[in-house]
Amino acid sequence: MTNQDREESVIVLAQIENTFILINQYREPLHMNITQLPGGGVEEGEKLEDAARREFREEAGFCCGKLHYIGELWPAPWMSNEVTHVFFTNEVSEQLGQRLEAHETIEVSFLPVNDCIERIQKNIYKDAELCYAVLLAQSKELFSL
Amino acid sequence: MTNQDREESVIVLAQIENTFILINQYREPLHMNITQLPGGGVEEGEKLEDAARREFREEAGFCCGKLHYIGELWPAPWMSNEVTHVFFTNEVSEQLGQRLEAHETIEVSFLPVNDCIERIQKNIYKDAELCYAVLLAQSKELFSL
Repeated sequence: MTNQDREESVIVLAQIENTFILINQYREPLHMNITQLPGGGVEEGEKLEDAARREFREEAGFCCGKLHYIGELWPAPWMSNEVTHVFFTNEVSEQLGQRLEAHETIEVSFLPVNDCIERIQKNIYKDAELCYAVLLAQSKELFSL
Repeated sequence: MTNQDREESVIVLAQIENTFILINQYREPLHMNITQLPGGGVEEGEKLEDAARREFREEAGFCCGKLHYIGELWPAPWMSNEVTHVFFTNEVSEQLGQRLEAHETIEVSFLPVNDCIERIQKNIYKDAELCYAVLLAQSKELFSL
């Protein structure tokens, strides 16, 4: 199966010192603001890593250095062919400010890694992409607690 | 928000001795067989735990004892209001045989816990619900490696 057959998106789990960069945005299907990771759809012909840098820049307002690809996730294979590609970085530099689309309102926050893990364990955070990225990175020991 | 507003499903991560019970089934949107956890939709008026026991019985062919609720997951909040409720059990008894619907073909397997973790870390398993349940249970130290 080639990439063209699937709806592809990217997310970035970024660590700055002892915090993760999270975003909070309104999600219409749930009628509420929820906490997620910066990310979005891959444009036609765009490389995955380029898409990750672009979305991270647009939504979080930062540049990132070396990106580590940690895996692809199938969020809802019973109803969708969407694939989410997950990147991890601990090289974040230059706060440039967000470049949001007109319909987007995204709040950026910095949460200590320990608190993020605790909120996932306590089921305060429920977003599949966020939970997968953080728990996979923890399982692979990409960061230390 | 009440439960009636959302599409709800349940999955069960079940440990027997040193293995997890997994299922393999065809998923039309991806055009392939994939590895997941037993589970399915909650019926109208059905309690979550009852739905978990029923789906586990139907798809895996076993009864389970005490079920631990470990959290709810939002698989795809950008396009769907679906919620997946995740249960863990290490009390599995009485192999009764599956009770599948006419259109279902589900292969049950028993994979050592260590191998399951490794396949998630290596991105061989990509299903969001499976990865979330196993990684969350690992993070909460519900099982030992």
